[in-house]
Parts: sequence; structure tokens; C-alpha cells
Amino acid sequence: MNSSFEYIYGPHSVLSCIKASKRKIYEIFIIKGNKNTKEIEALALKKKIQITYSDKNHLFSLLRTKNHQGVCARVSYLPELSLNNILDTTEKTYDFIVILDNIEDPRNFGAIVRSAFCLGADAVIIPEKRSSSPSPLVSKVSAGAIEYIDIVSVVNIAKALDELKKNGYWAAGLAAEGSINIGELDIAAPFCLVIGNEGSGIRKLVREKCDWLVNIPQGTLVSSLNASVAAGIGIYELVKKIKR
Amino acid sequence: MNSSFEYIYGPHSVLSCIKASKRKIYEIFIIKGNKNTKEIEALALKKKIQITYSDKNHLFSLLRTKNHQGVCARVSYLPELSLNNILDTTEKTYDFIVILDNIEDPRNFGAIVRSAFCLGADAVIIPEKRSSSPSPLVSKVSAGAIEYIDIVSVVNIAKALDELKKNGYWAAGLAAEGSINIGELDIAAPFCLVIGNEGSGIRKLVREKCDWLVNIPQGTLVSSLNASVAAGIGIYELVKKIKR
Repeated sequence: MNSSFEYIYGPHSVLSCIKASKRKIYEIFIIKGNKNTKEIEALALKKKIQITYSDKNHLFSLLRTKNHQGVCARVSYLPELSLNNILDTTEKTYDFIVILDNIEDPRNFGAIVRSAFCLGADAVIIPEKRSSSPSPLVSKVSAGAIEYIDIVSVVNIAKALDELKKNGYWAAGLAAEGSINIGELDIAAPFCLVIGNEGSGIRKLVREKCDWLVNIPQGTLVSSLNASVAAGIGIYELVKKIKR
Repeated sequence: MNSSFEYIYGPHSVLSCIKASKRKIYEIFIIKGNKNTKEIEALALKKKIQITYSDKNHLFSLLRTKNHQGVCARVSYLPELSLNNILDTTEKTYDFIVILDNIEDPRNFGAIVRSAFCLGADAVIIPEKRSSSPSPLVSKVSAGAIEYIDIVSVVNIAKALDELKKNGYWAAGLAAEGSINIGELDIAAPFCLVIGNEGSGIRKLVREKCDWLVNIPQGTLVSSLNASVAAGIGIYELVKKIKR
């Protein structure tokens, strides 16, 4: 990352970015005649953000993808919080934190962030040295959810779990070999749900920090649920424990 | 479909296809030195299925995709059942049927079939004239689940619901505007869960046949859950009602 900006794309990402107000938005590019951007244009006008009307060749030259549905924006990077930021704040309660131990596929990352935000988790913790970062693709796949939800970046997931547990958090790890049916887990806020790598699951050191390993009951003939579906079900089930 | 065979690809699809024994398998092609195919090779030997060792250019010429992980098979089409087949049989109980009203994206179709099978639904009903058919891509995305689960093809989803209801089935439709929290639905087997189109949801005529419209509680800032995650949560929640 040598430049101090990036281009996010797709109407959901750009609209969420404007509404969430977490990034500086330098310029919005819209293909002339686009019908999906009325709300974006109205908000940009109101917030005095520059709009440039352009064409698809120009957007492709900026993005190197055609998957933009006629709109993109040059924006500052998404701010990432530290663990202390969320442990020390009195402004917001973090009852339910989703921890991604080592998700590799940006599409799974985006889909899980979308589920976390839509279903009502409070933050997502990711490792600093990670295979999948909060990129424009992730923003697109998350349908803009990553623009809203708090993303916490930590050096070491196992140490972050120690810190969270010192602060009263319980930790459940989602694992095929888990001995507890997630629907029957007795857990009280604040807590975290740890989600492991698509192929290899939660790493041993991290798994050992979990208070419980929970499973989603399923058959064994086919190699288990898709990673983002499993994560969605896990988040759905635990959000029930923080009914607000 | 002029030919009487198709090529499925990927180790999960091919392995599930052999194990499920629903299709005739004419020939398996494996790239020399592939390490993911030991179980496939052992089963093929046992079942006297011809294996041809080949290279990636040949596989690409057969499949027109590179996404095969070194293995494919020439197979007959997947058999599809009629509604009468499953209503009249005494061999198996169909307590929970997933109905796809109009899923368009083959990746969503494959992911939902995978969730349905892994979580324990008994069959998937799809419309005959459909945007997404049980293609080799769907088999790949479903991780082979479509090779196992019963796929029922009907001319008209609304009429199929009438027929199911005559046979004692209840029908819940998954819809953002549903008034009942799916976790609180009081339903008893046999029943169906209707899942609508990714963008437009369940069609009006079909929605009117549903006994309940159920929702997954979620926020409103981002345009709702991903279609296959929502379907996965819906199936997960209703499978609990058929605990066997």
C-alpha cells in the first residue's frame, strides 16, 4: 500500500461508505446514465463530495475489474481499531465479538462480515498478518457491511483471547469436532465466537483458549457446510444470547 | 442437451457421484500425479469404472473450465424425481422439503443444496423452467451434495404447494417482510421451507400459498443477508423441528 487511497466499487459499498462516515471520500465516479446511484448522488450533493461522470473504460482503468455496477469512489483506507480501543471505550458495549482466526478467501471474509453486521454482532477481530484483508473486494462482497461494523486488528489471536478473557469475555470456538451443539450452548454476554480457516479450522493454540468448542449438527457424507454458511449459522445462534 | 452425458468435475463431486450411485459413470479422467484422488481410484477399481490418466489440456478441452482440481467424470444426467415419486413412496419419509422458488445464481443453488443436505433436509424442489439447473457447476459448488439429496422437478411451484398441502404439509416462506421470527415458529413435520429469488424474493402467487412468512431478525442498514447464508440459517432452524 504505497498510495494513501483506494477505490471501492459497487453501489452498496459506496452508499454504505458515505452513510457510515468512517472514511474520507475524495471523489465518486459514476457511469453516465446509471440508474442505481440516485441515493448516492443526493447524499454526495448534500455532503459536498465531488462526483465525476465517467464511462466504463475509465472505471475499468481505475479498478481493473468490471464488477462495479457503474459506480466507484476514491477513499481513504478503512480505519482499524486496536483491542484496547474496544475494551476501554465507554461509548459502546461490545457484547458479541466475532473472531476470524485465519479466513483466507476474501469472499468468505466479506460474507462473514456481512452476516456479523446484519445479524447484530458488535465487532470483528482479524489477525494483522492475514491472508484476507479489508479490501475493496471484501467491501463489495460484504454489501457494504464492512463500512459499518468495527474491525479490530490484532497481532496475535491467541494473545487477544487472553486479553478478552481477562476482561470477562467467554470464548466459543466453532469446530466440526466440537462436543457441544451450538443451539444448546449456555453462554452469557460478553462473549466471542472464534471461526477458523476454511480448510484447517481453528489453529491449535487458539482452540486451546476457547472455553467451549461448539458444532452445528450435520451429516458426514459431504465435507460439511460452506465456511460462510457455517459462520452465519454460528453468529445467528449466538446473537440470540444477547437479545437487547 | 443433445448428448446423453455430461462432465462433472472436482474431487468432491466425482467421489460423491460414485458413492451415491445415482448416475451411470462412463469414464473418470484424472491428471497424472494427482494426490486428491486416491479414494476415487480405489472405488473406481472396485466398481470397475474405467479411469483414464490424462493432462490438464485434455481436461480443459472436455470441461472448458480450469476449476477441476485434476479430476472429472463423464456421467449420465442426474435423475430428477416427480412430486408423486416422493409423495407416494413408502421407502423414505420426507419430513422437511426445501423449495427453491426462483434461485438464479448457480453458486447460490449449489450452496443451498449443500446446506440442505448437510443439515438434514430430505429433498429440494425446483421449478422445471428454471434459471439455475442441477449442472456440473452446481454439483461442484454443492461439494457433491447434489449427488445425494433428492431433487424434485415440478412444472409449477404454486401448484406443487397445493399438492403438498393436500398431503398434510405445512409451508413456511422465508421473507424479509415475514412477521414471524423463524426461531419462534411453531411448526410440526411434515413441512416445507420456501426460499425465493435472490433479488425479488418469493413470487406473489407462491407467497400466498405459504401458511407463514418467517424472517431472520436482522438490522436494516445493509441490504440483508447473502441469499445462501439466509437459506442456510432457515434450514438450520427448521431442521430442529424434525429431530429424529
